[in-house]
Amino acid sequence: MIHSLKTLLWTLLVAGSAALISAPALAANDAMLKLLEELRDNGTISEEQYEKLNDAALAEEERGTASEQEAVKEQVKEQVEEATKDLPEISTDGKFEVASKDGNWRWRFGGRIQVDGAYYDNDNSELASGVEIRRARLNMQGTIYKVWDLKFEYEFTESPPDGIRDAYIRYTGFKPTSLTLGNFKEPFSLEQMTRDLYLTFMERALPDVFAPSRFLGAGVHTYGETWTAATGFFGNNVAEDAPEGYGIPARVTFAPVHEETRVAHLGANFQWRSTGDDKVTRFRQRPESHVTDVRLVDTGTFDASSFTNAGAELAGAYGPWSVQGEYIGTWVDQAGSDPNVYFWGWYTQGSWFLTGESRPYNFSSGIWENVKPKQNFSWGDGWGAWEAAFRYSYLDLSDQDIDGGKQDDVTLGLNWYLNPNIRFMWNLIKVLDVKGGSFNDAKPFIAQMRAQVFW
Amino acid sequence: MIHSLKTLLWTLLVAGSAALISAPALAANDAMLKLLEELRDNGTISEEQYEKLNDAALAEEERGTASEQEAVKEQVKEQVEEATKDLPEISTDGKFEVASKDGNWRWRFGGRIQVDGAYYDNDNSELASGVEIRRARLNMQGTIYKVWDLKFEYEFTESPPDGIRDAYIRYTGFKPTSLTLGNFKEPFSLEQMTRDLYLTFMERALPDVFAPSRFLGAGVHTYGETWTAATGFFGNNVAEDAPEGYGIPARVTFAPVHEETRVAHLGANFQWRSTGDDKVTRFRQRPESHVTDVRLVDTGTFDASSFTNAGAELAGAYGPWSVQGEYIGTWVDQAGSDPNVYFWGWYTQGSWFLTGESRPYNFSSGIWENVKPKQNFSWGDGWGAWEAAFRYSYLDLSDQDIDGGKQDDVTLGLNWYLNPNIRFMWNLIKVLDVKGGSFNDAKPFIAQMRAQVFW
Amino acid sequence: MIHSLKTLLWTLLVAGSAALISAPALAANDAMLKLLEELRDNGTISEEQYEKLNDAALAEEERGTASEQEAVKEQVKEQVEEATKDLPEISTDGKFEVASKDGNWRWRFGGRIQVDGAYYDNDNSELASGVEIRRARLNMQGTIYKVWDLKFEYEFTESPPDGIRDAYIRYTGFKPTSLTLGNFKEPFSLEQMTRDLYLTFMERALPDVFAPSRFLGAGVHTYGETWTAATGFFGNNVAEDAPEGYGIPARVTFAPVHEETRVAHLGANFQWRSTGDDKVTRFRQRPESHVTDVRLVDTGTFDASSFTNAGAELAGAYGPWSVQGEYIGTWVDQAGSDPNVYFWGWYTQGSWFLTGESRPYNFSSGIWENVKPKQNFSWGDGWGAWEAAFRYSYLDLSDQDIDGGKQDDVTLGLNWYLNPNIRFMWNLIKVLDVKGGSFNDAKPFIAQMRAQVFW
Repeated sequence: MIHSLKTLLWTLLVAGSAALISAPALAANDAMLKLLEELRDNGTISEEQYEKLNDAALAEEERGTASEQEAVKEQVKEQVEEATKDLPEISTDGKFEVASKDGNWRWRFGGRIQVDGAYYDNDNSELASGVEIRRARLNMQGTIYKVWDLKFEYEFTESPPDGIRDAYIRYTGFKPTSLTLGNFKEPFSLEQMTRDLYLTFMERALPDVFAPSRFLGAGVHTYGETWTAATGFFGNNVAEDAPEGYGIPARVTFAPVHEETRVAHLGANFQWRSTGDDKVTRFRQRPESHVTDVRLVDTGTFDASSFTNAGAELAGAYGPWSVQGEYIGTWVDQAGSDPNVYFWGWYTQGSWFLTGESRPYNFSSGIWENVKPKQNFSWGDGWGAWEAAFRYSYLDLSDQDIDGGKQDDVTLGLNWYLNPNIRFMWNLIKVLDVKGGSFNDAKPFIAQMRAQVFW
Repeated sequence: MIHSLKTLLWTLLVAGSAALISAPALAANDAMLKLLEELRDNGTISEEQYEKLNDAALAEEERGTASEQEAVKEQVKEQVEEATKDLPEISTDGKFEVASKDGNWRWRFGGRIQVDGAYYDNDNSELASGVEIRRARLNMQGTIYKVWDLKFEYEFTESPPDGIRDAYIRYTGFKPTSLTLGNFKEPFSLEQMTRDLYLTFMERALPDVFAPSRFLGAGVHTYGETWTAATGFFGNNVAEDAPEGYGIPARVTFAPVHEETRVAHLGANFQWRSTGDDKVTRFRQRPESHVTDVRLVDTGTFDASSFTNAGAELAGAYGPWSVQGEYIGTWVDQAGSDPNVYFWGWYTQGSWFLTGESRPYNFSSGIWENVKPKQNFSWGDGWGAWEAAFRYSYLDLSDQDIDGGKQDDVTLGLNWYLNPNIRFMWNLIKVLDVKGGSFNDAKPFIAQMRAQVFW
Repeated sequence: MIHSLKTLLWTLLVAGSAALISAPALAANDAMLKLLEELRDNGTISEEQYEKLNDAALAEEERGTASEQEAVKEQVKEQVEEATKDLPEISTDGKFEVASKDGNWRWRFGGRIQVDGAYYDNDNSELASGVEIRRARLNMQGTIYKVWDLKFEYEFTESPPDGIRDAYIRYTGFKPTSLTLGNFKEPFSLEQMTRDLYLTFMERALPDVFAPSRFLGAGVHTYGETWTAATGFFGNNVAEDAPEGYGIPARVTFAPVHEETRVAHLGANFQWRSTGDDKVTRFRQRPESHVTDVRLVDTGTFDASSFTNAGAELAGAYGPWSVQGEYIGTWVDQAGSDPNVYFWGWYTQGSWFLTGESRPYNFSSGIWENVKPKQNFSWGDGWGAWEAAFRYSYLDLSDQDIDGGKQDDVTLGLNWYLNPNIRFMWNLIKVLDVKGGSFNDAKPFIAQMRAQVFW
């Protein structure tokens, strides 16, 4: 016994001190193992007992190490949580957003830059080639007190207050219904409601001239599993001095299918708008190219007490293929004895992702969303997403005594999505014909491209 | 002894290993407890000794566990502090602000949106009903090198550089005195110095026409326990081309009482302003409603080499009640042989919080602060704060050869503070009379409302 | 043995429990030490063995403590890293920037405010004294997907889209070469390429009139250890309607020496620019003071189909001394039968840091950088950096049939850098002479100062 204790001490001091370095708290266990050996060696316990005890001691050591680490881990976790519990969630990837851990507060800073270049092959249409910043916007948006969303966005290529885009506060406490107050888009038209960043072509189609876009007002939006509905009451444009009339729009959409790569979408739009005390209106449209300020079709300002817009939407996606089309018409009630006039237009477009992506759809808003390439572009690795597209559009701004002209265009488009935030776009547009108006018989050809980044 | 050792080992391996899972490092102590039992059982120690030893060992175990946990906790704390010491303080609730832990650096991003609608019941006053974005501002402010504050704020409803609001740098190293350089408000008038976000009515009272608001210059501000004093030297407005004169303002306030729900405030204001080489000036004022651009009283531009403003303030709060009044007059030194003229105005207002809040007062600036509802609004729970208010205001812009007109208004106001950041306001204004000027005898009635959010 | 065990237990319980508080897991080792004493006392081991064993046990205890603490520390470190690995890097000191830990994403918010005051001692030069906000800018910039940089900066003293400054996206994947697309500075002139925040004098020298500054276009920049090269293709100015011509600039610099306090820099610049369909151009320049809008030299708008700029740069720093000079000339191809004209200018300047700083140089861009004082200013402690400077500049805008005038100025400058972000500047300018043009013989004296903060 004495001998074995001496041996134990020696062994312990030599071996145990080494063991201590890697697992210090288990020295006692190592001592136990040595003790067992000594007890076996001096016959206090049998070989069989020794095996059993040794196995148990080894298992204990393992459990000890594991449970000890677990205990430390638990303590660290608790204290790190304590130390970081006031830290918000901060997103840096894809967007800059800071939100409280409970999600009741959220702040986001976004922006976009679109640089366009256009070459115009003119005949008599006075289109001047050049480059421009198509859009340069910054926005700050947030969520406050959990159920209030706010947003302010400014377009720096336009003069105040024309540059004010979304500027609203939204109550989201009645899910799925939301109430919005401020400057925002009247619900009307699939292409108008889809963010410009996510359009297939550089500019919206000719009939977009009838879509009201943003006005100051109040609106309500709601949705179900396969449908959306929105309406509101809107006053004048933020840039206009009162009195500039008011509008009552409505949009309903129906999407019986909205899977990840299969979408079927139907929509109907309506707006009635009073032109206010001025009792005038005007419809004019650029040739699906914005570098020029020339409008090939233009009614000029004419007397009108009110007008009524109606539109129908049809769209779908099937794997890499997508189609989209809209018809919009407007009945204008000319003030006085002039007859009422009817203007209208339509477009149809199709696109194909060569790289296999599918156009994403937002069923709760009934609009298209941002394309995310399967592989982001990086030299020698992924090549981003590539999309080829075709569009035909038609616009008729001539009726009765108003000769604004009729125009139809075809467009070929090629889009390169380098990653979800950067996109290059190329459009070739042929104006097939302009009939009537100031540019009768104009048939210019347009080649344009865009570099777009947003965040 | 041998037997007891064997028993000890067995017991230890079975019981101890379970104990290890919850407190692994204390196995040695468990072994000690078992050993004591064995020693008692084989008579090596007496029952009495055993009790004593066992109690001590148990106490030791407790202390051991506690001190061990304490030690780990301490280590974790230190290292968590080390790992997170470079993380700044980030506020997401109520505002977005990021500050270094030492407070020497601070960055904040704020903004506001005010959407107004106004209905004008006209007689001959040409006021046109409508909606507008009253204010849409973003700002970035910060603290750098501990003692320097900076701020830049832009009003997006106005054209550059008119939209530049606060744009200054401030030295705060001589507490409680601060020095400011840049574009900021000349110290003058309680209502003008109070932030528009915190006003009781949608627009400031008629006599605010005499308050200089923001100019480019340098100023000094200081305060004691019951008083504040501010002065400065200011050049032209940021939007005006030089030479546009310069101004020397001063404001002193005295608040013998400024408790949480009881405030008594007195103030005096002064400004001398040269009109610069142009030697002209103009005073005109909207009817406490901003949707219209019509001014019912307006001196038109007239010759003036300088003018002197003086004003007196009186205000107080007592529980849910508050009162406020100001008188401001201006002596205009008309250039040449024209006689000097005197214009003046005053207003008085009172308000009552139906929900029991008290109007908060900022004693170091001598201004009113933001109302925080006792309960924030949420459906079926709190209903926010509600305030009813009344105001009478008078403005006289007619004297000698200048016939700008005289106007007096009464206003009924109702404010709903949903939470500290969102407010709805309703104002009913009756213009009691306009005498003289271009709108002689005008007595329009105005109903207007505002939705306000700021962050 | 029995006795010694009893003693051991007692000693252990009394002494060990105290030891446990400070190092609980080492109780076993204390027990070992006591056991050794007992074994020595009852003769089981010799005094010699005891010494050896005791020393080893003590060493083991030390190692045990150290290694145990190390192990816990390591575990804590790992787990703290795990718990905080999604937290971005947040800079609050000197700038506000948030970046992902891997550096692939970065967001930064910056701005600047410059407040100027100028006093003009006129003769016939119609310069009007006053104050102005010289620049008030905010910007948001970032890095996305590691190799894409983006930046948007807006100047709030100017109307849209004139206020758009940098608005670009840059590919940095081909280090050290970068490709930029959008609105940014054409590479031309050391003084123009150096950020306005880092200039020695309040305004750039007279010949800067020939430097193109920002246009919409595409550019490439690269550099080696001692050189930089940049070129590009640029269209019209962001504020101009097309068609406004296009420009092809190039800049190469050579810096055989660029140590921390010693710099030798040479540069050459070139630009060819078509004036577009308008076929006109104009050169005019303020007298190195911006509060006034008056230009003492001005060619007026004249016919020109294109012009070619060329320039040479020479600069250096040696300890607190720095020198800089440029020559720029432009050949204008007047449309039609008018003769070609040649305009030119040059400047030379020197500066001395009284407080010993050296002007920092950015060798990868071939430009000057921000001065950082050796000691920041704070009352009674450091006094910031002080710099005295002198400049002579000359501009000749008269040739052939164009009489824009010739001007030469001398400037004395004093700069106070309170810290890296705040600077005060004083300039005394004497226009030595204006010959020709609308202000023939004008020799005004100008005293101006600036307060500048940026972040």
